[in-house]
Amino acid sequence: MRRAAITAVGAYLPEKRLTNADLEKLVETTNEWIIERTGIQERRILSRGKGSAYMAIAAAQDALRRRNLPAESIDLVIVATVTPEHPFPATANIVSHAIGAHKAWGFDVEAACSSFLYALSIASDSIAAGRVQRALVIGSDKMSSIIDYRDRATCVIFGDAAGAVLLEPTEEPVGVMDYLHQADGSGCTFLHMKAGGSVLPPSVRTVRNRLHYVYQEGKQVFKQAVVQMAAVSEALMQKNGLSPDDIAFFVPHQANRRIIEAAAQRLGLPMDKVMLNIDRYGNTTSATLPLCLYDYQEKLKKGDNLILATFGGGFTWGALWLRWAF
Amino acid sequence: MRRAAITAVGAYLPEKRLTNADLEKLVETTNEWIIERTGIQERRILSRGKGSAYMAIAAAQDALRRRNLPAESIDLVIVATVTPEHPFPATANIVSHAIGAHKAWGFDVEAACSSFLYALSIASDSIAAGRVQRALVIGSDKMSSIIDYRDRATCVIFGDAAGAVLLEPTEEPVGVMDYLHQADGSGCTFLHMKAGGSVLPPSVRTVRNRLHYVYQEGKQVFKQAVVQMAAVSEALMQKNGLSPDDIAFFVPHQANRRIIEAAAQRLGLPMDKVMLNIDRYGNTTSATLPLCLYDYQEKLKKGDNLILATFGGGFTWGALWLRWAF
Repeated sequence: MRRAAITAVGAYLPEKRLTNADLEKLVETTNEWIIERTGIQERRILSRGKGSAYMAIAAAQDALRRRNLPAESIDLVIVATVTPEHPFPATANIVSHAIGAHKAWGFDVEAACSSFLYALSIASDSIAAGRVQRALVIGSDKMSSIIDYRDRATCVIFGDAAGAVLLEPTEEPVGVMDYLHQADGSGCTFLHMKAGGSVLPPSVRTVRNRLHYVYQEGKQVFKQAVVQMAAVSEALMQKNGLSPDDIAFFVPHQANRRIIEAAAQRLGLPMDKVMLNIDRYGNTTSATLPLCLYDYQEKLKKGDNLILATFGGGFTWGALWLRWAF
Repeated sequence: MRRAAITAVGAYLPEKRLTNADLEKLVETTNEWIIERTGIQERRILSRGKGSAYMAIAAAQDALRRRNLPAESIDLVIVATVTPEHPFPATANIVSHAIGAHKAWGFDVEAACSSFLYALSIASDSIAAGRVQRALVIGSDKMSSIIDYRDRATCVIFGDAAGAVLLEPTEEPVGVMDYLHQADGSGCTFLHMKAGGSVLPPSVRTVRNRLHYVYQEGKQVFKQAVVQMAAVSEALMQKNGLSPDDIAFFVPHQANRRIIEAAAQRLGLPMDKVMLNIDRYGNTTSATLPLCLYDYQEKLKKGDNLILATFGGGFTWGALWLRWAF
């Protein structure tokens, strides 16, 4: 049986840090409140004039370098993003060109905070089906380009970053083993961007009314995130006969430390089995999961069972069982 | 061997028609020039306040009705679009909720004019890999939301529409047989939207400078489209031992009648084997290919070999060999 294994992970983090002390100067908030309610201490911010492609390119190059592979050996590049470089063409095509992946086709995937996990799933299916050999799946979001720094409910949460995984086929029982994804479009009300799409294109009015930013009703999102992320992870584990003891690490989307803790508790997983880096980066949307793998890769060994889980706008959520391959 | 077969096709066309005579009143152009240079006589325009989700919902419902299947039986919905309802969440999630596809996960795919063919390819891979049973792949674009009706080079070309295909697994030698896709990000220069992405977010200045519209250098796009669409179709046919005689229909992206004619000629295919409806709809971006299948479905019989081909922004291009399944 042919599966897709992650054989390298790369990342890019902008140098500039936005600390809670910085945010105290922008909006009415405090360092204590932010840490208590979100677990976040600082986020990275990409400079003006640079977009998600800049970060995606760096993360992709990092992944290739770690595997010592030329870009020409890649035949599919997917960029998961809610903040593409341009509305079109795909950020993936810009990235392929910049890194020299001249044999790669590619496209962007958008499913809010679930973009990366969904992109990883479909790339893995294309490899399993034998249509694709090597793929780069990159999560890159410049959230600072769609955050209203007057809205204290959202501006403390999000940050900019990119992470990339290299996928290669394997006949061994490692890599993407199974996944289970779900969605509920009634959740659109609670987490969306009002303008900038075809139903309300950009205009002077939409800009002045600050409609090109993340709109979030945090309470509804919080509740659903805990319930669904735990439920879908549990369902995936049960389907595959996995108990909490079998899991080396739970790799949850980093939206809020309290969501992660509550979900882990429901799953019966101690916090030392939970990947966590939200304190340093905030919610980087499509980059959270590859950034977790990046930060924890030294602690992983071949065969380790990981459950990656996500919840975000849509609502979309899901879980993916990954066996570490190197 | 498990493959994904198209088992139903649905469509939605807005009622309002924008004719060449209408365009003569908006920009300096003539009916004769438009017909000679593009082959287009009229396009459909969706009314203000409605977005791509509205059309995608109608097309998806049409496809399900034709197959007499409940929406609950769908487990994946992909919307291919360059004009999503909102920047996030995914239009796919809005569609799933509206049609009652409560068991479906979903996301949006963006690869400019190649969005639909790429989305069809990955949905077919997920079915072939056994991860997905039934999928809806919908191409929906409200191009009028990103067209500058002062730019006579682009406003005569594009129109609004949606098309949807239902995919189901089959063990028969029908459905998606093979595909070959390519990209060249150096083409970004010639066809893109300048603002609205993370590198240049919406502002009063970007709106006033009319940067939220399709920017196209037609000559470069035209040349590449002819060469690449023919070359990739030929490569796919050769790879699979298919001669022009084996092909029932060539199904090209409808960007310009002259591109289609030149590509067909290079492939040695007579025009009566080429699906063509650009005269009535213009370039509807992600909707052109499913709209062709929709319009020609009465002429198709089970086992017919079709070559679907695309070229668009990115640049992205590709070809897909489909055996008609019903």
